[in-house]
Order: sequence, then structure tokens, then C-alpha cells
Amino acid sequence: MSKIFIKNSTIIPMTAKEDIFQGHLYIENGRISALYRLDEEPSFALEQEDLEVIDGQDKVLLPGLVNAHTHAAMTLFRSYADDLPLMQWLNEAIWPAERKLTAEHVYWGTMLAIAEMIKAGVTVFADMYFFMDQVAKAVSNSGMRGHLSRGMIGFGPNAEVALAESEDFYKSWNKGAEGRIRVWLGPHAPYTCPPDYLKKVMSLSDRLGTGLHIHLAETMTEVQDIEKAHGQRPIELMHTLGLFERPVLAAHCVHLTEEEENILVEKKVGIAHNPESNMKLASGIAPIESLRQKKAIVSLGTDGAASNNNLDLIEEMRQAAFLQKVHRLDPTALPAYSALEMATIGGAKALGWDDEIGTLEVGKKADLILINMKQPHLYPVHDPVAHVVYSAKGSDVHTVIVDGKVLLRAGKLTTIDEEEVMAEAQKAALLLTAKE
Amino acid sequence: MSKIFIKNSTIIPMTAKEDIFQGHLYIENGRISALYRLDEEPSFALEQEDLEVIDGQDKVLLPGLVNAHTHAAMTLFRSYADDLPLMQWLNEAIWPAERKLTAEHVYWGTMLAIAEMIKAGVTVFADMYFFMDQVAKAVSNSGMRGHLSRGMIGFGPNAEVALAESEDFYKSWNKGAEGRIRVWLGPHAPYTCPPDYLKKVMSLSDRLGTGLHIHLAETMTEVQDIEKAHGQRPIELMHTLGLFERPVLAAHCVHLTEEEENILVEKKVGIAHNPESNMKLASGIAPIESLRQKKAIVSLGTDGAASNNNLDLIEEMRQAAFLQKVHRLDPTALPAYSALEMATIGGAKALGWDDEIGTLEVGKKADLILINMKQPHLYPVHDPVAHVVYSAKGSDVHTVIVDGKVLLRAGKLTTIDEEEVMAEAQKAALLLTAKE
Ligand SMILES: [Zn+2]
Ligand SMILES: [Zn+2]
Repeated sequence: MSKIFIKNSTIIPMTAKEDIFQGHLYIENGRISALYRLDEEPSFALEQEDLEVIDGQDKVLLPGLVNAHTHAAMTLFRSYADDLPLMQWLNEAIWPAERKLTAEHVYWGTMLAIAEMIKAGVTVFADMYFFMDQVAKAVSNSGMRGHLSRGMIGFGPNAEVALAESEDFYKSWNKGAEGRIRVWLGPHAPYTCPPDYLKKVMSLSDRLGTGLHIHLAETMTEVQDIEKAHGQRPIELMHTLGLFERPVLAAHCVHLTEEEENILVEKKVGIAHNPESNMKLASGIAPIESLRQKKAIVSLGTDGAASNNNLDLIEEMRQAAFLQKVHRLDPTALPAYSALEMATIGGAKALGWDDEIGTLEVGKKADLILINMKQPHLYPVHDPVAHVVYSAKGSDVHTVIVDGKVLLRAGKLTTIDEEEVMAEAQKAALLLTAKE
Repeated sequence: MSKIFIKNSTIIPMTAKEDIFQGHLYIENGRISALYRLDEEPSFALEQEDLEVIDGQDKVLLPGLVNAHTHAAMTLFRSYADDLPLMQWLNEAIWPAERKLTAEHVYWGTMLAIAEMIKAGVTVFADMYFFMDQVAKAVSNSGMRGHLSRGMIGFGPNAEVALAESEDFYKSWNKGAEGRIRVWLGPHAPYTCPPDYLKKVMSLSDRLGTGLHIHLAETMTEVQDIEKAHGQRPIELMHTLGLFERPVLAAHCVHLTEEEENILVEKKVGIAHNPESNMKLASGIAPIESLRQKKAIVSLGTDGAASNNNLDLIEEMRQAAFLQKVHRLDPTALPAYSALEMATIGGAKALGWDDEIGTLEVGKKADLILINMKQPHLYPVHDPVAHVVYSAKGSDVHTVIVDGKVLLRAGKLTTIDEEEVMAEAQKAALLLTAKE
């Protein structure tokens, strides 16, 4: 496996704000093997044959971004139906199109998502969808890292099938793609998975020793329906059921009581905040600054491209920060560094993967990105963190490395044939959205 | 003057949503001289020596974006001080730095802003700042279009100077730069310009026959202070003073009563909505969807880069739409096409310039942009308007034409030496923000 030396960069390791420094980073065997200050001499020869040297001048180097909640293949429905009431959007546009999905469509939709994400600096994504073998194949082929869950609906003829397939998927793909894939179970939501079904999911998760990825408290309607049916609000109900006794990645968490916030904090639930999806679908504003102050595990997701409509985590960071500021009428809420934490180490923690990713530290997997700061909209340089969060665009990402392998070099994808992926995705989209 | 033929594009003329078509556009003498459907034969020879042909395939062609409120040279303070309480930000960071500004700083800061704006598809900006001769020079040198106002503070020793300089600036630069500059007066705000001073500004504006660019109802503090001092809220007070009896471009308009909304509608005040600045400074959420439904003239601005922290109007469109949706808890609020109207024809109307710009129509000035849609994050293609507003980035802008002249060709600036501008801006920023 190749060695990479990134020299002369502004390094934002995301261990602490004061740890930012000018220096170099060395990668061996897929891991970060050394960090050097600008004036330190590397302890190895720079003229080795298999050593790639990347110039970090005028660039910031930081951990790869973690997209903690998405449905990658929904790129196929990007801008297919917008500005509609939620139920009309689902009933008349998204669900009819999703019913036509085949394995092949999911493969190309996921590859399109991965191409987009790599180009914008995302190095791992937490995905919940169908035909997950295809998603795993796309992760495997692209060199991306994936935290994958088969979406499970707890009623109807497929409820039991979903359990069996989830177990199969775990056995086939957990630790797959040279360790770049981790598989969790994906019970969709409290309103699609009744308590009895969730109990089956929990016992399967315990048997496999894996976590759960679930949507929680996304809309007011959900909260009201769950309260009506079960006498408790979603987070309370999950707590009563014992769901949080294992690792849980909970998407949205928009509508919370003070007590529900405290449950999430205490049980160390990973919270995936999806500000743009919550804004576009008019779900509401999650109390992320409050959760952050209570030291909850907060992370950032894009949700699917149909409700976003892109998978740009830099945009999502800015959005999270701005939204909390205006929501709380406090310009000091969710400062830039905290938003960047959510998109890196916060995401790694929420995915239960901070043993290997989320910061730039010796021994961790080499998942990292370089952002090109020498551009008019990133000048002059005062505070690199504020620049990345408040001024940058996904397109400013110059280099992306996952597991020690370069997936984006000077803005060009190295493992994906972009033209082919776009053509196949367009073909799939035309079929899926054709009027009968 | 050169001729340009843009062929095979998806043309979004912004005259009406159903007017979108596939075709070609022809530019002569700085103006749009013809629009053709895909199968129509141009009425001129395509082999003329001075004809530039631009391939519009896989691109959308739309009017240039209008940044209806900014302080361009404040790019120098981008990311200089963030996440601070408003008064601390102004008192301890921005104002001390601004006091050191020289004419040369303003020139380079403005050039940096213009470079950034052209690269992201902005073809005209409404600017209020100091050393406006320098701003006009930057507009003139870059080929950009500018709607320029000298900021006026109505107390202190410079109040009268500001009136005299504004008149001089009008006489020197209105209709300058081959007609690409229009000068309006710039009374800063009701809390910096007392009624007696505003009366002087109004009589100067009538004498010159020009409009006013002003900040109105940006923060709750302003509304309370004005009400306390004058017994009326800002919009009411301006109405009573007769301010709206001439063209007015009003930035922010965040805190409005129903009656104040109606005044703005009735008096055809151009409203420049600045969602990102209002979010970042925690000013509040302007009732833009309500104003739009009442047929107010609504437009979009970035405000200065210090409170944004970029000048990307595509981002601002998305932000405006998402913010209204979550604010009103209605996913149908401010749909994509309406956001695009705000950024084009709405902006042109707000600036009093829709006689010449804002739509793609024969006879109008050739201010237009091409966006490259052949990218993973803009695939598949369902709805080009939703793609532009909800999925695109400023960096997707491929070509920018102002007044019939190409200012950005395949992503490269043609009139600005980007390296020089960045270096000069960095130098200026270091001086301005140096600790004493
Ligand atoms: Zn989701
Ligand atoms: Zn302003």
C-alpha cells in the first residue's frame, strides 16, 4: 500500500481548537503515521519510489466529513418534486417512484451520491435504504467508507423478511470492503416500527452486537401520532422500550421536550441533525445548540437528495450554525468550530466509529481532505475555521483520501467514471419517474 | 463591439415560468438581439469573423444574478470576527478596522468582491460604502455593473460633507462606465439619519432625480429605539416623512407589522432580503413570503462578507426559500421559481433597473450567465429551476456576460488578475486588522 506525504498545510486536527498548526502529515498503510510541525524534519526519506507527495500550500487539511444520515440512492429523485405539501410529495411523487426501484437503479443512484460526496469532501456516509447489497458494492468499488443499514418497516408482509435480510446483510458485509463498511440495523421510525417489532430488532442487534440507525421525532405529526397511540412521545417511548441500551444513531430529533433532550444526552445517543431537510420539508428546527451545550453527541446529515437537494456537508455546517443563531436570536450560538466538530469527530462518534476516524491523530485511519483556500471567496485569510464553515463551498475540496487511498486528486475523481455514472443515473431516473 | 451566439441551451428567460425553452440567444452591441427555438434558423451568418460562438449544451442560460444589497469592500473583514454579540462585533472588531480604511483598501476589497461575484454569476450589485470613487473605478475596470451609493451618516462633522460628496459622486459617475453605473443616495438608516437630515437627503434626491438606498427595520433594537425616539416604527416613520415618494431600495425589512408590510407594497419600495446576514447576526426572519404574496418588490442581497461570509447569491436563493419554509412551517412557501425571480427580475425592479436588465428579452442589456449542469450534484435533470436554486453552487457558473462582454469564460475571469487582487486584499487586511 502506498505512502503519502502532505506537506506545508494548515492542519485542523479537530482534537481541540488550539491544536491547529502549520505542518505536514504522513500516511502509511492506510493510517496516519506521523504529524510534523513546519520546521520538523520527517524521519523518513522523501525520495522513496512509492511515496506520493501532495503540496498542502494554501490549503487546509482536516478530517474527512461525516454525512451521518442519508439515503444515497435518492439522488435519482433530486429536484423531481419540490415545494409540495409533505404527504402529497410522498404519496404522489416519491413513493410511487421508489416502488419501481430495482437493484441496478440503487447501484447507480448510490454511485452518483458517492461521486457527489467525494467531490465535496465527505469520506463516510450513514445510509439507510433498500437493496443494500448494491450500496455495499458501490462503497466497495468507489473506495468510500460506509455505515450501512437496511431500512426496516415493521408491518406488512415484508416485516419478517426485513429482519432476515438485515441479518444476512450484516453477515455478508459487516467489516467488508477492507474494513470500510460497518453494518447496523435500520428500523425506519417509531411510526413504521411498532413496539413489538422494535423488540425483535433489539434482540437481533444484541445477538449480532451491532447498533441501530433510526428516524426519531422528525415532525410534529409523528410526535402527536405516537403520543396518541402509545401515551408517550417518541424519545420517551424508545427509552421505555430500552432501545437506547445499545448504540443508536437517531436522525432528526427535531421535536424534543427538555426531558427528552436529557434522555438523549444520558444514553449517549448519536444525533444526526439534518437542517436543510428539516427546513425544506418544513419539519421544524431541532434544539441542537441546547443539546450541544449539554454535551450530547451531535452530528450532521444531508438526508436524501430529494429533500435537500444536494449532499454538500459544508453547506450543511453553515446551515446548522446560521439556523441555530436565528432560532435562538443569539449570534454566538453554534460557533464555527462547533459546526465543524459536528461534521467530523461528532459524526464519527454518532456512527460509533471514532476509534478509527473523525480526527487527525497518529494511528487513526487516513480519512482526510484538503480544501483549496486560494480563491477570491476565501480571501483574505483571517480564521481558517470560519472560512471553511461560513465561506467555503463543496467545490473548494481539492483532495480526498479515504483509508489511505486518494479518491479525489486536484478535484478529479480517481475511482469513479463520472460520465458513466451520470448517464446511468439519468437513464434510471427517466424510467422511475415516467408517467404510466 | 463583438457579437456572441449562445447555442443549444436551456433558456430560463424569467419572464414567466412556462417560458423556459431549448434554444439559442444572439447578442449584438451589448444587447440581446434575438432568441431562437432549437429548430429555428438564425437570420445571420454563423461564420462572421467577430462572432463568438458559445456552446450552451448541458447548460442553463439565465439572466445575471442581482446582488441587491452589499458593502463590497467588507470582503477585507471576511472571517475576521465571527460568532460575537452584535455590539461587540461592531465596537471591537468591525468599526475599529473600518476607521483605518483608505481609498486604496476600498479599491482592492471591492475588486476582490467583484471577482468573487462574477465567478458566482452576479452581474450587478447594489453597494453602499465609503470611498465610492474607488468602487466606481473597480466597476469600471472590471466590466461589472454597479448600483452605487455613498453611505451617509446624518450626525457628526461629516453629515454635510456626506451630502456634498454624494452630489459630487452622482455628477461624476451616474451613467458612468458606458452606462453600467447608476448612482443613488445612501442614507444609512433611520437610527443614523435623523428626520431633519433625511429631509435634506430627500430634497437632494429630488433635485438630482435619483433614488435612495437605506437599511430599514433590521433589528428589534432599531425598531424599539426608533419607536421610543419618534413615536413610530421605522417603516411608519419613513412613510410619514415622505421618504417613499421616490424610488427606495430598503435593505432587510425584518421586523414589520402587517400595516408596514402594506406600506412597502403600496409605495412599491424595493425590498432587499438578506437571509444569511439576518441569520448569522441573529437579527430575525423577514416576512418575505407574506410580502411576495402581496406582490411586493422583493429581491436578494448578501450584505457584506463580514456577516455572511460570502457573496454567493445562489446560496442566498436557497437560503431564502428554505428559511421561509421552516419559518412558516409550510413546504410550499417561497418556491424555487419565486426565489429565482427575487435574484433576477425582482432585483432589477428593486434597483429601478428593470428597463435594461433582469430578464432575457430582445432589446435588454446582455447581462446573462450559463450554469454547467453536467455534474454529479446536478444530476439527474428533472427540473432545471429546482436544480439551480436547491442544488447548485456558485462554482457551477461557467460563463458570465455583462453588457455584452464576456467577464467569465469557462470559469476563468477575463478582466481581473485574480492573483494580484488576492495579494493586495491580503496586504490590506493585515494592515487593517493589526493590533495596535
Ligand atoms: Zn432520512
Ligand atoms: Zn447592509
